[in-house]
Order: sequence, then C-alpha cells, then structure tokens
Amino acid sequence: MTANPLLRFGVSFSDPALLDRALTHRSAGQANYERLEFLGDALINTAVSIELYQRFPRASEGDLTRLRASLIRESSLAGLARSIDLSDYLRMGGGELKSGGYRRDSILADTLEALIAATFLDGGWECCQQLVRALFTSSLEGVDLSAAKDAKTQLQEWVQGRAMPLPDYVLVDATGKDHDKLFTVACRVDGLSLSVEAEGRSRKLAEQAAASALLDRIKEGSGK
Amino acid sequence: MTANPLLRFGVSFSDPALLDRALTHRSAGQANYERLEFLGDALINTAVSIELYQRFPRASEGDLTRLRASLIRESSLAGLARSIDLSDYLRMGGGELKSGGYRRDSILADTLEALIAATFLDGGWECCQQLVRALFTSSLEGVDLSAAKDAKTQLQEWVQGRAMPLPDYVLVDATGKDHDKLFTVACRVDGLSLSVEAEGRSRKLAEQAAASALLDRIKEGSGK
Repeated sequence: MTANPLLRFGVSFSDPALLDRALTHRSAGQANYERLEFLGDALINTAVSIELYQRFPRASEGDLTRLRASLIRESSLAGLARSIDLSDYLRMGGGELKSGGYRRDSILADTLEALIAATFLDGGWECCQQLVRALFTSSLEGVDLSAAKDAKTQLQEWVQGRAMPLPDYVLVDATGKDHDKLFTVACRVDGLSLSVEAEGRSRKLAEQAAASALLDRIKEGSGK
Repeated sequence: MTANPLLRFGVSFSDPALLDRALTHRSAGQANYERLEFLGDALINTAVSIELYQRFPRASEGDLTRLRASLIRESSLAGLARSIDLSDYLRMGGGELKSGGYRRDSILADTLEALIAATFLDGGWECCQQLVRALFTSSLEGVDLSAAKDAKTQLQEWVQGRAMPLPDYVLVDATGKDHDKLFTVACRVDGLSLSVEAEGRSRKLAEQAAASALLDRIKEGSGK
C-alpha cells in the first residue's frame, strides 16, 4: 500500500488507486499523475482565491491577482511539497531518478497539484479546500498586502516619502484600431532627472508599465 | 429587488446584496463586481476542468487544456451571457451605457464570472458546480475531441489519409543556455513540395510549431 504524505493533514483515501496515481510520474508508468495535475492546478488556484477573497475584504481585484500569483507560482508550490517531504513518496522511472527529477521544482509542484486533485476526487470539495487551507496556512499568514501594491501606488508612495511632487503621466502616442490599440505613456517626477516611456494595451496599463520602469531606474540608481 | 438572471437555472440568493453586486459594473458604483470576477474566473476554470476530466477519461492533459481554453475564452463566456440576456440585468454608469458597454464581450464575460462567484458564496460549491454544468451543457455536448488534437497528430492523420509518407522532423538549430534554449525544427513531407521551419522553447514545442505552420501552408494551398 502506498504511503500517504497527507496523513498529517488528516486526509485519507477511500480509493488508494487515486493516491497511487497522484504519486506516479509519467516515467514510472501509464497510470501517472498528468491528468490529475490538470485538475489540481485549477483546484489550487480556486481554493487559494477563495482564501484571499475572504481574508482581504478590502483588497482590489488587481491586488488579489498579484497575491495569488505569488502564492501559487511553481517555486512556492515546490516549497510546500518539500515541507511535507513529497519527494520521499514520489515514484519515478530510472532515468528521471538518476537525473534527480525528484528535486526539480516543476515535478514537485506538479505532484502537489495532483495530490490536491486526488483529494478532491476522493473526498469532495470541502476536503480539498481544507487541505489547501492547511497547506497554505503560513504562506497566507505571511502575506504582505503592500507587496501586492501596483507600480503607480508604489511610485507615488516613494516620492511622497521623499517630499517630492507626484509623478506626472503624459499620453505620448496612441496607435492602432479600436480593438488593437497601443498606448505610449511617459512618466516623469519633478526633482528626479529621470523620464521613461512605456507601452500598453490601454492607457492604464501603459501608465503602470511606465511607473514600473521608473521604479526600476530608481533601484538601478540606488544600487550603484 | 434585483431581477435574477439565474432563476431559470433554479438558483436563488439568500443574500440579495451578492446578486446586486455581481450585476453592478464599476461605472455604476463602489459595490461592483470586480472582486467577484476575480473569484468567478477561478471557479469557472475549475468547474469546467472537472466536467472535462470526468467526461473524457482518456483525453490527455494537453487535450483537456486545449478544450478548456476553447470553452472558457472570453468570446465563449460572452456567448453564454447573451444566451441568458445578461445585458438586460446589468447596471452601468451613463458613459458606459451610452458607449454600449453592455454589448462588449469583456463586460459580459466578467459579469458572468461574477454571477458564478456570487452563486458559490451564497450557495456553496455544489450549487456553483451545478450552475456551471447547466450553463455549459450544450458547449460540453458539442465538444469535438479531434479539435483538441495537437498539430503533429493532425498533420500525421492528414498525410495518412492521403497515403503519403509520415512527416519528417529535423532539428536544425539549438541556441542559448540551459534555462533559455531556443530550438529550430524543420518539418517536411515527402510528396508535398513544402518545407517549413519553426522555433520553440523545447524540441517538442518547436516540432508542434513546425507541424502547425505546415498545416497552415496546406490550408492556404487548398484555398487557392
């Protein structure tokens, strides 16, 4: 019988074949986790979205999207997989095993996703949501809303902290037809001898891109 | 009281404020659907993934991913929104109203996502999954697994149907360092005076791109 890496979370499987499959890399057989991973990727995304939506009732859609991206990116999921020693449970073929596949971020993240899908298929939605909540407890507690601030907000706070005037955004150019426009915006801060231009599919996006480029320039400058 | 566009699906709301919010565009007030849309986008993705996973037990992860993308792209969601006359229920500010915002694919798709999130928050997971299943019934029944075939498979079937030899893939070039390689692959079919090259981040992706380019050329040729 396959050892269950989720026992510590109180998750057990009525159908042990699902657990088997979730822990089997394609190099070790046909009954592998690839289809489960398809499902698990979506399930993690949703379960984490729900946690963020409920924990941060005042966060904007953009902030929530950025927070979610940082929580569920491959390296974050691989970190969670390592925290439960997932590589000890993984079944791989000889080649992958020799090349150290069980250490790779992508394989660890995929296996974690597959396990979450197996939990859903075996135990239902509530069980899956509880597992995700347990897995992400400390990541969720460590969430820094300020890290999710958009570039324009960050730039504004930076200049305000230095008693400079607010950044200036000027639309320089707009080309293309209605459904395919491209906007160019210049961003400038009085008192800084820096001015950058950036493009975007909307004026708002171009302004964000310009603010982000200016922040990069400021960081480069202070790094010298 | 807000009219409920989901009544035809048997969905009612214990908290009518959620329905209100789901139907309110940001041009019409602070209590708008933007945060709900964040959640609904994830929920649709997951609910449709589950349907596909269960309906197509032999489809590969790649096929499932392609099918899902076609079912939940903006234009598909806007089509579903139109099928339930969602624009009649939408609340928008004067400017958006005048410019015909209620006809735009993006706004219709976003509102549908928000409604699905409101259904989840009010009625729970099962209710949300049932609504998505009902909404997508005919799209799911119309799913053509062959449409999800990858380009190499499609090309192979095309040449086999014409008793031609199988396509030939040759690695022409590979540049860049380990984590940033670019592969160039040539694809050729004996008996067709066509040969194309295409690039990709892996050899497999470059082969798919080359097969896809060759299929395009074949279609162009037959269209003349």
